[in-house]
Amino acid sequence: MMSTQPHPFDPLSPEEITKVAHIVRQLSPNENVLFRVITLSEPPKRELIAFLDGVGPPPRRIARVHAYISKAFHELHVDLNARGVISNEIQYGKHSHVDTAYMKQVEEACLEDVRVKVEIKKLQLPEGATVIVEPWTYATDGMNDMSTRTAMCWFYMKLSGHTDANYYAYPLDIVAEVSETLQVTKIFRLPSGQDESINDDEKLYDHRKIHTSSEYHPDLSTNKRDTTKPLHIVQPEGPSFSIDGNHITWEKWTMRIGFNYREGMTLHDVRYDGRSLFYRISLSEMFVPYGDPRCPYPRKGAFDLGNDGAGLNANNLKLGCDCLGYIRYFDAWHVTSSGDPLKLPNVVCCHEQDDGIGWKHTNFRTGNAVVTRARLLVLQTIITVSNYEYVFVFYFGQDASIHYEVRATGILSTVPIDIGNQVPFGTVVAPGVLAPYHQHLFCLRIDPALDGYRNSLVVEESVPMPFPSPSNQFGVGYMTESKVVTREQGLDLDHHKNRTFKIVNESKINSTTGTPVGFKLMPCYSQMLLAHPSSYHAKRSEFGAHAVWVTKYSDDEMFPSGKHTMQSLGEEGISSWIKGRQDDASASVGNEDIVVWHTFGSTHNPRIEDWPVMPCEKMVVGLKPVNFFDRNPALDVHVSTQERNKSVLVGEMDSERVEREAQKPRL
Amino acid sequence: MMSTQPHPFDPLSPEEITKVAHIVRQLSPNENVLFRVITLSEPPKRELIAFLDGVGPPPRRIARVHAYISKAFHELHVDLNARGVISNEIQYGKHSHVDTAYMKQVEEACLEDVRVKVEIKKLQLPEGATVIVEPWTYATDGMNDMSTRTAMCWFYMKLSGHTDANYYAYPLDIVAEVSETLQVTKIFRLPSGQDESINDDEKLYDHRKIHTSSEYHPDLSTNKRDTTKPLHIVQPEGPSFSIDGNHITWEKWTMRIGFNYREGMTLHDVRYDGRSLFYRISLSEMFVPYGDPRCPYPRKGAFDLGNDGAGLNANNLKLGCDCLGYIRYFDAWHVTSSGDPLKLPNVVCCHEQDDGIGWKHTNFRTGNAVVTRARLLVLQTIITVSNYEYVFVFYFGQDASIHYEVRATGILSTVPIDIGNQVPFGTVVAPGVLAPYHQHLFCLRIDPALDGYRNSLVVEESVPMPFPSPSNQFGVGYMTESKVVTREQGLDLDHHKNRTFKIVNESKINSTTGTPVGFKLMPCYSQMLLAHPSSYHAKRSEFGAHAVWVTKYSDDEMFPSGKHTMQSLGEEGISSWIKGRQDDASASVGNEDIVVWHTFGSTHNPRIEDWPVMPCEKMVVGLKPVNFFDRNPALDVHVSTQERNKSVLVGEMDSERVEREAQKPRL
Repeated sequence: MMSTQPHPFDPLSPEEITKVAHIVRQLSPNENVLFRVITLSEPPKRELIAFLDGVGPPPRRIARVHAYISKAFHELHVDLNARGVISNEIQYGKHSHVDTAYMKQVEEACLEDVRVKVEIKKLQLPEGATVIVEPWTYATDGMNDMSTRTAMCWFYMKLSGHTDANYYAYPLDIVAEVSETLQVTKIFRLPSGQDESINDDEKLYDHRKIHTSSEYHPDLSTNKRDTTKPLHIVQPEGPSFSIDGNHITWEKWTMRIGFNYREGMTLHDVRYDGRSLFYRISLSEMFVPYGDPRCPYPRKGAFDLGNDGAGLNANNLKLGCDCLGYIRYFDAWHVTSSGDPLKLPNVVCCHEQDDGIGWKHTNFRTGNAVVTRARLLVLQTIITVSNYEYVFVFYFGQDASIHYEVRATGILSTVPIDIGNQVPFGTVVAPGVLAPYHQHLFCLRIDPALDGYRNSLVVEESVPMPFPSPSNQFGVGYMTESKVVTREQGLDLDHHKNRTFKIVNESKINSTTGTPVGFKLMPCYSQMLLAHPSSYHAKRSEFGAHAVWVTKYSDDEMFPSGKHTMQSLGEEGISSWIKGRQDDASASVGNEDIVVWHTFGSTHNPRIEDWPVMPCEKMVVGLKPVNFFDRNPALDVHVSTQERNKSVLVGEMDSERVEREAQKPRL
Repeated sequence: MMSTQPHPFDPLSPEEITKVAHIVRQLSPNENVLFRVITLSEPPKRELIAFLDGVGPPPRRIARVHAYISKAFHELHVDLNARGVISNEIQYGKHSHVDTAYMKQVEEACLEDVRVKVEIKKLQLPEGATVIVEPWTYATDGMNDMSTRTAMCWFYMKLSGHTDANYYAYPLDIVAEVSETLQVTKIFRLPSGQDESINDDEKLYDHRKIHTSSEYHPDLSTNKRDTTKPLHIVQPEGPSFSIDGNHITWEKWTMRIGFNYREGMTLHDVRYDGRSLFYRISLSEMFVPYGDPRCPYPRKGAFDLGNDGAGLNANNLKLGCDCLGYIRYFDAWHVTSSGDPLKLPNVVCCHEQDDGIGWKHTNFRTGNAVVTRARLLVLQTIITVSNYEYVFVFYFGQDASIHYEVRATGILSTVPIDIGNQVPFGTVVAPGVLAPYHQHLFCLRIDPALDGYRNSLVVEESVPMPFPSPSNQFGVGYMTESKVVTREQGLDLDHHKNRTFKIVNESKINSTTGTPVGFKLMPCYSQMLLAHPSSYHAKRSEFGAHAVWVTKYSDDEMFPSGKHTMQSLGEEGISSWIKGRQDDASASVGNEDIVVWHTFGSTHNPRIEDWPVMPCEKMVVGLKPVNFFDRNPALDVHVSTQERNKSVLVGEMDSERVEREAQKPRL
């Protein structure tokens, strides 16, 4: 149910998108306008805070537009209230996010290219093989910094006639570089072993590379397990959440959900029991650099948000498949190249989960147990970026905790390797198939508003007290040492010191503990970027250098690798921002409007168990109140009773029945 | 359904316990025999392996007995087959685990002691206050190393007449030391601020300390939330597991569940798809040292397994309260002091959970998505140790992963503090109530048997390749470096290097990857023990010094802080074992029968949100196959369908209905 008057955080409606497209086309009536983005330009925070606090009018509704106007890449801002363009800037040397129409043309151009055909012929592919071209965005490697769009085309072959046969199981030995104008500008022959030497003598696709263990589609894999019995989630009184447009109310939580083409799901004005906690939380960027040093593999480094768009690539979630239980879906709207609204259906699902014991205590003197179960509110979105998928989930707890989970699944990016070879930067996952090492680095942007918009980041460590000393005679004493971070910077995790990052409001003291109210980050301990600081991977990602960053809020700083990551040359990200104002006293972050960024992820050295589709690899980050409330916020959750929960006792008889059934011969 | 012939891993049956008690009593017919333990003495591993491999007979069934025979602490071994005592040793200078009957006597003796009465009178407690004495085991602090049992009695008061009023909200300012013979040997007045000075001038329990926010029992707390709608787990075809006695079969997994008074739940002979993975997994010890340096608080340091027993303190789990869904329970048997079998009902629950997306891939060329949901098998036990509770859970995945989760909940251990005071080693959680900082250190004992009993521990790190160098021209290359650990030792975690601990079978090479088959530890990054190495806390815990330990298997080395932790003096644990054989060439751990121990936990600096009962704090450890199988072991899980999962779409109308209901006035 969308209210008639949009809330300032509401994404643009289809009507608004249509209106904006019309305004932009009117601006250039005689030019060819190719729309890439029409999205909400979130109002300046100052204005929005005033509105939220009830002391300001609704901010003007502004759309941000990316469009190619007569082939020049423009960013425009359109005022929907005044119905006019308020800015229009050509983004010289920058590129819009991935253009699937262009990529499709690249594929075709590649396959039609005579030199490509010659190379493919040399490979002597088995009879019946179909060549598949997978174009990738170009990761700057310094060999040529192209101001025009360039695609890297990786080649695979499909042996089966089935449409969903896994072609990643047969990576071919060539790669082509294709230009903006759809010319094949270079063809590389890929190395076949640890160094860059290639193997063009022997027949590469001999029978030893042909195998049957790499299919994942149910049509192609026999031998399905039939032991998993159905499990249903039933909520006879319906779910506990209520939703009004993009406003969600659940168990003392309120928040607004947003969605845009780049970040996908965003959260706004997150409150618990009426108290403000977070102004905005979102995944702000991710980077997947490959560690294979052999040319041209350094060109593999994907900004899946900046280049591809977590919103654009969000899956249309299916009831009962992607989501179990009582599910509410949210749709989103994008724009076609001609300026028409394009529905992205079911991009976010909202539901509840049971999470086991919430809290429990048994009084051993009376034997009386008081136990509650933890209920979670789940907001999930799933994206597909070529071979990989990512599941992004926010979990809200009754105890005022928030957890953000990333699950990596999908198919490994593969390259060819000669049978019998091994390399120290990849795993052979099938005959002739190398899955190179790579990293997945995510950056969660946390814009706090703990009881107000002026917050501080505190670093706290647990340290042994000096020993021997009169105040620590037995050597067992330890204490915490806390320090407010006053300058913008990147910081690292150290579990050896129990280093804890707290976001606090220094002007709001908890009356019982005597300390500032706060939330602490429960980080995901991860290795940071392995690429050399002088490499393009490092210069382009920046956020991958440290695990926790604090910056002073700026309306313009949403993306820690810069606004445009496509073929970027780097030095436009979070450490560059900080460096640029290191002598600026106003960039202090003590008791200011701050943003905290957490970089985490995985150094993904593939296992064969990740093949052909990897079981979800989970990474979890948490935010928990620390001396923010006056006691356990979930204390008022009702005790758990069988009357309400209706569990079923499985007796020995049932087990026997189950066993008998398990022993029945299967058809 | 218990088979008539017990499996060598089966815990003793009640009949066996009765038989053993009879044999022991016959040994000393004229002596007073007080039984503490009659438990299975697990067969020597060599014999059991032969039996499991089908090349040896069932090992002799042996019981281990702890008993006070005419007040001397004996350990006996009784052969159930031969019906005879095969060993009988007095444990000089050692003490059995906590004796609740003695602790009850200590409480009473304390309250009857004249000097205690005088001290209590001095405190001028409010009218109607009931004094509660909470006896704790004595943590050696070097002030006196008592060869006889000693208890530390902490005092609280209960103001409400309700049996489950939270007396931890009113810690009193005295503590008493009570002897084996029930004499109060010392009374301490507790400090009231940061140093050890005490406050005996003013009236301590003035109205400012009396408050109403610390109750957790539903009878005593008004203001319950009524927004949480019921959520049921329904399995119309029953659960997917089958159970035969202590043998569990589920989704290609087989294992035997064990249970003993000390470790609680244990797992044995864990296999996946018929392949051996782990010989035994259990929580082997835990230690809760307090960081408050003021005398006599260094005497707070609890070995909740060695002193109290995770098995003995296991909760009787309740259907629909502790466990949701289709639940199968396991009982355990202990012994009364007179030698009768004592049933510990419902100490472990077994059920299934849905765990969201298992794996997913969408072919972007065809739009076809293949998605599976992850199902988990859950084995849960919950213990209460005085104020705290711990939830211990094993999760088995269809992808051959195992996760072990500890949830800490319950009530913080509290001490008094003067109103207005603060200390750097504790948090004031209610008026006059200090929750001192402390650590929870757990040690998971992992006895691997990956495709056989000779395994190795490998340490692998991900390191940047040298740059600049011909083989890393672009500075993006990284590789792994692996090292087999050949000597017994303790090792530390380092996420900066993505340091990974793999257990491998060096003699079994994965035919595709060309590397040894293995499982990797997904550690829980935690701060190790903060107490000074020369402190009793450190000397007694030992396992708390490092996160990962590897030792050569020994039948006698089950408990990494030693066999008897009650009032132990230390230097009986894992580092002492290793030190004792550092010059012993046969203690090599490369390609040997090894045990891997993982120490993890939390530095628990309480939040006020942990009061009065803390929301579960989760700690998770994982074990995942790494190049053990030939592909994703969950690849054969059926795709997820709405037909099977029967989810329900929540439409806008439903949300409106929910809103209307939420707005109805409540009675």
